[in-house]
Amino acid sequence: MRFTSDTSVDGIRERDFTLGDVPGVLWSPAAATGRLPLVLMGHGGGTHKKAPAMGGRARLLVTGIGCAVAVLDAPGHGDRPRTAHDEREIAELFRARAAGEPEGPIVVRYNAHLAEQAVPEYQATLDALQRLPEIGPGGPVGYFGINMGTAIGVPLTARDPRITAAVFGQFWPGTLLEAARRITVPLEFVLQWDDEHIPREEGLALFDAFASAEKTLHANAGAHKEVPRFEADSAVRFFGRHLRPVP
Amino acid sequence: MRFTSDTSVDGIRERDFTLGDVPGVLWSPAAATGRLPLVLMGHGGGTHKKAPAMGGRARLLVTGIGCAVAVLDAPGHGDRPRTAHDEREIAELFRARAAGEPEGPIVVRYNAHLAEQAVPEYQATLDALQRLPEIGPGGPVGYFGINMGTAIGVPLTARDPRITAAVFGQFWPGTLLEAARRITVPLEFVLQWDDEHIPREEGLALFDAFASAEKTLHANAGAHKEVPRFEADSAVRFFGRHLRPVP
Repeated sequence: MRFTSDTSVDGIRERDFTLGDVPGVLWSPAAATGRLPLVLMGHGGGTHKKAPAMGGRARLLVTGIGCAVAVLDAPGHGDRPRTAHDEREIAELFRARAAGEPEGPIVVRYNAHLAEQAVPEYQATLDALQRLPEIGPGGPVGYFGINMGTAIGVPLTARDPRITAAVFGQFWPGTLLEAARRITVPLEFVLQWDDEHIPREEGLALFDAFASAEKTLHANAGAHKEVPRFEADSAVRFFGRHLRPVP
Repeated sequence: MRFTSDTSVDGIRERDFTLGDVPGVLWSPAAATGRLPLVLMGHGGGTHKKAPAMGGRARLLVTGIGCAVAVLDAPGHGDRPRTAHDEREIAELFRARAAGEPEGPIVVRYNAHLAEQAVPEYQATLDALQRLPEIGPGGPVGYFGINMGTAIGVPLTARDPRITAAVFGQFWPGTLLEAARRITVPLEFVLQWDDEHIPREEGLALFDAFASAEKTLHANAGAHKEVPRFEADSAVRFFGRHLRPVP
């Protein structure tokens, strides 16, 4: 892990890094002393590690519960090059959208493809972050990602036992069911009751599939992009309950 | 409205009252000056106006957002006499429970019967409370009731335009669908994903029926009586967002 910038604004320290050729960002309290709980975040499709939703959630987490927050650019996103496969899938998605056809089948298969690459990238990032003195090994780790962030986070959380709490949402059960059934950590799951892309029954089926004894569904009236802002506050409280400070 | 006691403990004023022959309780900040937002609460079946869930929620509301909170004993509950009809329905409920038969059909019809009486009682109580100088007319009014509190609160909220925000949950659509379809105020709705009494599809159908543009479903894993404590905190935040302080 190589840090390429280090700035602090309004009490929040922001460090850009690369791990191999994967760019990421690490936010943490500027005045932190001692070891920090960590939240890994995954961004949505078509956006990047510093999109407003990522910076906004990071700010709430850093100032709200004093944890560190790390996000990677997903393959083909942000500062990373697109492959010919990326270009084909994106063109196909735009074609379906323009034709008024369902986006789900394309998003599900494309994001599953990206997750195969992103999951080991997140695991290697977690390895590297836990070698930093301010995070260290064995501390509490959460995962927070909606949409494509869920397509990556569900297989990641199923595979990596270091992640002990997660916030997911807004995805089709598609390729995620088998991994969801192996997840037992506390969860908060967000969906939109009137989502024009994800049929209600499919969103509910994904929530139902998680084996977690402690899981909460937050379903809000409204369309796909109308998730209320208070859901980010709720996610921060969720992590505050589950990611105990490191002694 | 006749007040029969007036005590203050830990900054919370508690006044018992009767309105006709209906007993109720009014909680408010002991140090309040100026007009207060009001939350009407309805208790669950088989309990009463000062059951722990009522006192606990009232404490969170009074200390959290500085509002007044009023609860009535439902007909046949608490300090009110049971009629022969009450006794028959309760015996029938216990018989069904002992026989392992569904409780829903009995609870739905019995609570609908109680609501016919309770709704005008709550409206008369609201009339009287709005004549108190510390509440007054035209201020923000919420309703908070789960289980039987929803069986009473849904027809009450459909009928009384003074109620501008409500928290409901854990009930069958049964007799409530028509009233739910007329409700347009912001809602939070709580259900248990593994409720042994209320089939999941029926709980979701009741949530779906509300016409409110702003409504949120909170569904938690677990059985009927395992609603997490953090849902009461969430309800307080919900009322804090929607019941603006009276200028």
